[in-house]
Amino acid sequence: MKPLVIGMAGCGTVGSGLLRVLEENRQWIVERTGRAVQVKHVLVRDLSKPRDLPDGASLTDDPAVLTDDPEVDVLVELMGGIEKPRELIRRAIENGKHVVTANKALLAEDGFGLFRLAEEKGVGLYYEASVAGGIPIVQTLKESLAGNRITSLVGILNGTANHILSEMTSAGLDFETALAQAQELGYAEADPTLDIDGHDTAHKLVLLIRLAYGLEYPYAEMPVQGIRGIDRMDIEFAREFGFRIKLLGQVREVDGRLEAGVFPTLVRHTYLIARVGGAYNAIRIEGNAVGPVFLHGQGAGSLPTASSVLADLMAVARATPPHNTGFQRQVPPKASILPPDDAVSAYYVRVMVPDHPGVLRDLAGAMADHGISIAQAIQKGQDKRGVPLVFMTHEAGARAISDAIEQIRQAGLLTADPVCYRVL
Amino acid sequence: MKPLVIGMAGCGTVGSGLLRVLEENRQWIVERTGRAVQVKHVLVRDLSKPRDLPDGASLTDDPAVLTDDPEVDVLVELMGGIEKPRELIRRAIENGKHVVTANKALLAEDGFGLFRLAEEKGVGLYYEASVAGGIPIVQTLKESLAGNRITSLVGILNGTANHILSEMTSAGLDFETALAQAQELGYAEADPTLDIDGHDTAHKLVLLIRLAYGLEYPYAEMPVQGIRGIDRMDIEFAREFGFRIKLLGQVREVDGRLEAGVFPTLVRHTYLIARVGGAYNAIRIEGNAVGPVFLHGQGAGSLPTASSVLADLMAVARATPPHNTGFQRQVPPKASILPPDDAVSAYYVRVMVPDHPGVLRDLAGAMADHGISIAQAIQKGQDKRGVPLVFMTHEAGARAISDAIEQIRQAGLLTADPVCYRVL
Repeated sequence: MKPLVIGMAGCGTVGSGLLRVLEENRQWIVERTGRAVQVKHVLVRDLSKPRDLPDGASLTDDPAVLTDDPEVDVLVELMGGIEKPRELIRRAIENGKHVVTANKALLAEDGFGLFRLAEEKGVGLYYEASVAGGIPIVQTLKESLAGNRITSLVGILNGTANHILSEMTSAGLDFETALAQAQELGYAEADPTLDIDGHDTAHKLVLLIRLAYGLEYPYAEMPVQGIRGIDRMDIEFAREFGFRIKLLGQVREVDGRLEAGVFPTLVRHTYLIARVGGAYNAIRIEGNAVGPVFLHGQGAGSLPTASSVLADLMAVARATPPHNTGFQRQVPPKASILPPDDAVSAYYVRVMVPDHPGVLRDLAGAMADHGISIAQAIQKGQDKRGVPLVFMTHEAGARAISDAIEQIRQAGLLTADPVCYRVL
Repeated sequence: MKPLVIGMAGCGTVGSGLLRVLEENRQWIVERTGRAVQVKHVLVRDLSKPRDLPDGASLTDDPAVLTDDPEVDVLVELMGGIEKPRELIRRAIENGKHVVTANKALLAEDGFGLFRLAEEKGVGLYYEASVAGGIPIVQTLKESLAGNRITSLVGILNGTANHILSEMTSAGLDFETALAQAQELGYAEADPTLDIDGHDTAHKLVLLIRLAYGLEYPYAEMPVQGIRGIDRMDIEFAREFGFRIKLLGQVREVDGRLEAGVFPTLVRHTYLIARVGGAYNAIRIEGNAVGPVFLHGQGAGSLPTASSVLADLMAVARATPPHNTGFQRQVPPKASILPPDDAVSAYYVRVMVPDHPGVLRDLAGAMADHGISIAQAIQKGQDKRGVPLVFMTHEAGARAISDAIEQIRQAGLLTADPVCYRVL
């Protein structure tokens, strides 16, 4: 059978990983699919940079070389960004080529035109590598658990944020030190905004919600709280209560409405998801037939992400009929969204107060005024900002919590900004 | 589109779970695949037993009704056993029907004729439900990680055995009590041989090796050691060293040869696989691109297993071209097998000795005679069988270990049978 010919756009971390795996596992891929995978064009910005290309492949800086070559079967888009890859992918699909992409931002913010076009042209638009690196979560939701109604999904979807939180927990580092270390190790970008502030997790969560529910939770409406400036004091207090703090993307169905968001969250240390360390990712899915399923693996990096790109290429090589969204519909209807203020959760609240009599009474009073019931409280030590008081609440509404904290703030009881995290 | 019509053979735990999920998720399945799944025939032994059948389905005790009805698209085989299901499946395939089965024993001991026939007839032979219940391990190995060379695979593949070990560990039960409890709870069969003695794990391991390596490790050659009569003293000692004892199916590639087997194994308590409790299953796969991937979920039971059967049915409904083995070859070549005696591992060895001076010297001498180096040793307490002496060894060959133990036994140093487990 004739080889599957690919045009690869971008030759950075994932692209060079893909070239390496295609080379190392060349014969294996043929045993699996009956076809070789051959790279014909590699689109790069800088033609002069030396690169190790496979036989038969050549560099170009002209996107049309990939999209317009009738020999190319599949465009592999590994560039990043939004505008340029969208145009490239659109043109490839228009020319009847399949597309494999790792571009979560493009798909999450603005992918529908592409899915519609792919359907029209009868080509595959594959994106296993866009969420959680090497973990086969796209395939699992689209096919393996497809018969289930998904009741909830919780994921650690950003390795950089998880690495920072893990180092803060195990080595007692403060946030700035852990971030600087992650940057030195290459786990964090020079500009870590997308990772640290939760936007990357939110992009991935939007895609997982589409795959699990067949519904669109618009990225712009997703509540997102990142981990920037998280205080190691809170990691320590959480640990005393038996919890780890993790940056989670979460969704669950509550009476036909989706409750979703990205938040630093306390997770009981005995849960598998609390044990996800370093740059690993993990996803826990609960389905109405399968019950809970937990997947764990490397969420980023050259070879793990290339493993997912290659799985998609092999699906194309096997001539699998495209079902790109996992649903008959290519454009999901908008989800009915539970207003974030109505979300109910247990909370961890830490405030800094002056060492005065009556302060605890006033705080507890403000919580009670908003119907919030306290499960545990500790007061411990003192630092230059005051005395830390920590509450673990029973289930409470997000609005009640923020109102109670606002009342406490207004009453002038605080010597520093309060901290408030959900508890899984 | 016309519904996918199925004939279901067997209506026990999994069969009734499938009927329930098909009913509850009826509309959902159509949204996913564009087709309804309709049960037409249900093959049972006892026609008089009252059953809750869906509209349009009827009972039969004649296998030919399923295999010969031209309206039936798929045979779903959930009977168990080997001879009868093989004949049924063969006839269905001969008549051009796809097959979905959960029958690990049939496929592991004697599946090749069926795979060859399915290839010839161009039909799908699906078996996601045959390994690890609701965990999508078949699809993951066949497709998601297909581009990887698998370097190792370790699994907890039998929920009954894991439940018993978990209860012995957490509640301090002895083996007989834990087994009786598991039987009362319905986790263990009246005859628990397949589960307890490791044969069920071995069946599943044979299938996973085919999917991961494209090679046949014959079931009859698989080294298998079960957990029958495991002593809670060993679970306690293991815990003191920081380990849990788990019944693992394992395979890894060593210089082009496969080393595989089923053994009670000590696993460091910090590993995810040590944290698999109760009737759960889990699999850890290591691939040369993806690195380690860990999957965890319910390994048996009505609805989780039905979830996997349904995934296979939906693949058929989407008209996925069959690639039943995950390889071009339908019959894998026999693996080059590392002789079990040559396998290398760290070991846990516990012997019972009389309380005499010089015994430890003689034991240590026997180990040294066979080149086995001791990492840790403890001697603790005494019971009516003697004084327990426990060694954790550095890596040693299986042959050296068994020879050393034999030497110790011959020397008349032991007051009870020795115990010897591998360490992961």
